[in-house]
Amino acid sequence: MERTLNKDIILHSDKKVKISGWLHKKRLLGGLNFITLRDRSGIVQVLVEDKKELEKLRGLQIGTVLSVKGVVVKDERAPNGAELHDVELDVIVPVDIEPPVEIDKPLSHKPENLDTLFEYRAIGLRNLQETKIFKIRANLLKYIRGFLYDNDFTEINTPKIVAGAAEGGAEVFKFDYFSKEATLAQSPQLYKQIMVGVFERVFEIAPTFRAELSATTRHVSEVTMLDVEMGFINGYDDVLDMVENLVRNTLNKVYKDCSAELKSLNAPELKLNDKFPRYSIAEIHELYSKNTKIDVSNEIDLTPDEERWICEYSKKKDGCEAVFATGLPQSKMKFYHMKDTNDTAKSADLLFRGIEISTVPQREHRYEILLEQMRFAGVDPDDPGFSYYLSAFKYGLPPHGGFGFGVDRFVEKIIGLNNIKEAILFPRDINRLTP
Amino acid sequence: MERTLNKDIILHSDKKVKISGWLHKKRLLGGLNFITLRDRSGIVQVLVEDKKELEKLRGLQIGTVLSVKGVVVKDERAPNGAELHDVELDVIVPVDIEPPVEIDKPLSHKPENLDTLFEYRAIGLRNLQETKIFKIRANLLKYIRGFLYDNDFTEINTPKIVAGAAEGGAEVFKFDYFSKEATLAQSPQLYKQIMVGVFERVFEIAPTFRAELSATTRHVSEVTMLDVEMGFINGYDDVLDMVENLVRNTLNKVYKDCSAELKSLNAPELKLNDKFPRYSIAEIHELYSKNTKIDVSNEIDLTPDEERWICEYSKKKDGCEAVFATGLPQSKMKFYHMKDTNDTAKSADLLFRGIEISTVPQREHRYEILLEQMRFAGVDPDDPGFSYYLSAFKYGLPPHGGFGFGVDRFVEKIIGLNNIKEAILFPRDINRLTP
Repeated sequence: MERTLNKDIILHSDKKVKISGWLHKKRLLGGLNFITLRDRSGIVQVLVEDKKELEKLRGLQIGTVLSVKGVVVKDERAPNGAELHDVELDVIVPVDIEPPVEIDKPLSHKPENLDTLFEYRAIGLRNLQETKIFKIRANLLKYIRGFLYDNDFTEINTPKIVAGAAEGGAEVFKFDYFSKEATLAQSPQLYKQIMVGVFERVFEIAPTFRAELSATTRHVSEVTMLDVEMGFINGYDDVLDMVENLVRNTLNKVYKDCSAELKSLNAPELKLNDKFPRYSIAEIHELYSKNTKIDVSNEIDLTPDEERWICEYSKKKDGCEAVFATGLPQSKMKFYHMKDTNDTAKSADLLFRGIEISTVPQREHRYEILLEQMRFAGVDPDDPGFSYYLSAFKYGLPPHGGFGFGVDRFVEKIIGLNNIKEAILFPRDINRLTP
Repeated sequence: MERTLNKDIILHSDKKVKISGWLHKKRLLGGLNFITLRDRSGIVQVLVEDKKELEKLRGLQIGTVLSVKGVVVKDERAPNGAELHDVELDVIVPVDIEPPVEIDKPLSHKPENLDTLFEYRAIGLRNLQETKIFKIRANLLKYIRGFLYDNDFTEINTPKIVAGAAEGGAEVFKFDYFSKEATLAQSPQLYKQIMVGVFERVFEIAPTFRAELSATTRHVSEVTMLDVEMGFINGYDDVLDMVENLVRNTLNKVYKDCSAELKSLNAPELKLNDKFPRYSIAEIHELYSKNTKIDVSNEIDLTPDEERWICEYSKKKDGCEAVFATGLPQSKMKFYHMKDTNDTAKSADLLFRGIEISTVPQREHRYEILLEQMRFAGVDPDDPGFSYYLSAFKYGLPPHGGFGFGVDRFVEKIIGLNNIKEAILFPRDINRLTP
């Protein structure tokens, strides 16, 4: 007999079906005995009346793998709208010990319990609430790729083993590569710019690595990054528009298609406008000082509290939880960003629900100016590690810009989790290398 | 004026359009002067008659970035079916040196020229033929994901920084992880099996790492792997059917949608049946000996020559270039494979065009038997690195199986390239860590 998925039994009312899954709950009350069965599509309630069948369940614990044949009886109160009666059980994998964590009730995500959460991750992920987080995450990735395909972006796979730190930065993992020193890529930055010369519009979703010495709610040493780069832009507004469309489009889709999961996870309601408000960093400093009486006159970039504040402000005033903070001061820009006319770079931060999720710059595409900016930043353009990158400019790169954002952090913010690690299946930080 | 993509100019016959791209060819013959312009969608020919416009091109080389406004004149012989006349040029990024490699004519992929190919990769990828390889690759990835979504698989992201070598194997890259020893994941094997307990059906496309000491056409140290795992199977035929459907479905789609690119790259014609022939390894040994008179009576697994031979045999006899070699001898199986009744494991190799592209086993899902098999293989189940993995079994994993294959090698075989590195944007091997 073919297996029916739990979510589909309602289509077979009054007929006999076979379902397969994990024993999810067992309520043997003497008079009314039932179990629930979990499969990838949901939960189904199974009424067990026959003594011989009941006997098969003796000593079996949550997680036991079994098939159940029975008649579908409609019941609006039951999960998936029906339950199974007159059943015959077939135990496929008996489990005789209790799972170390709850599968049915939400697991604690309190800071002091996170270590337990990750220690039992292999089983804890079967918890219905945990599963929802990663279903949302998988959908998000699908929607992001869908949007990028629709906008003529080509997927690329760039190397994660590289010769030097792409941005000349510290905090890289180093290792011996056949007697040469190699590092794990912190970002595909240089490669995606090179690839603009090939496909104009490229993207990659892949792991990146950073030897983060901090143990905070924001730091992990392996993140899944979305990287996007586009050529032949008319100006940096084109890049802002693209990231705005991407974020709005995918968020709306996630909130529509995963509304039940998001509700069950107590995710905040989504408030977005078609156009995200754009405030310059200077404006935000001023607004923030005026409203909070906190002096930020010595700050160049936004403080974390200003990031939170401007998002709240925009949510109330503009009805939008995503905000662009434009006009990054040149003292904070990277050598490959393009300067704007005055003291600022053509770069904006995209803030969402209180934190920066992406930096969105136009790149400097003019070879000679790029060389100057490298030297000014103390980066040696004659370093052999840059020769390939620079050749892309020497032989013609159009005006371009792009952005990258951490998928993990985005998922964290979408659901309203407290720690980036809760949005990662098996997170890695300074203290955790397993499971 | 808005930019029109080269492939779309035919839609604007007799109208004025603006195109943007790279100077691809320059033929200034005195009488008839024209250039061609490359953008992400193709090539367009531009007739330059006006002297002032011609003057703008003086000294400019291939790769120069420019926009061209002009009137679309239909011409069936021209690429994209039309060319631009009465043009006005706008040079955006002048390039005054010749590119180090040809952009228009195919680059040599001869073994002795591969080093040059990769040395100038950042520019060489702009070559029209190279671009086709990676367009096909991007499409393949899209189709693979599409197939897996349609079959209810959930995408996962598993860590690439791990505590030990997943399969207890050698050839791993090791590095210092905050004073602990970490390795780069060779495969998401253990994680994808754990995730069967959560989503039943999971997949991942991500980089994996192997410290390959060999310098051959088949060895690179970083590969893009597709990994698939599915639970609640009725037997290992279910896994074979799934990989068969995946491969047939995506190959047919690639050969349909990328037929022009494949033809231009001289890719072999595709010959596939709905069902791929299934020969046991014992049968192949026998057929091969009989037909070639080569003695393989001492061989356990297939020799490379047998892999080539059986694919040729099946192509001729069955009209199918993909073949399953079933019945892997137990002496060659991994500890997590399931034994079959006699000397063989429930595992098959999927061969395509002469080489194995994937091993397709059912896993041993019974906790006690798995422990036995680990011990027999010399793997210590009490090693803390396995505790998470084993807990997934202890708390109930259904019968499951899966497969993984290298995307790079698959692309190589689809196009008929000679070396896996030709299918990788920036390959990494024992001698090459850049670009």
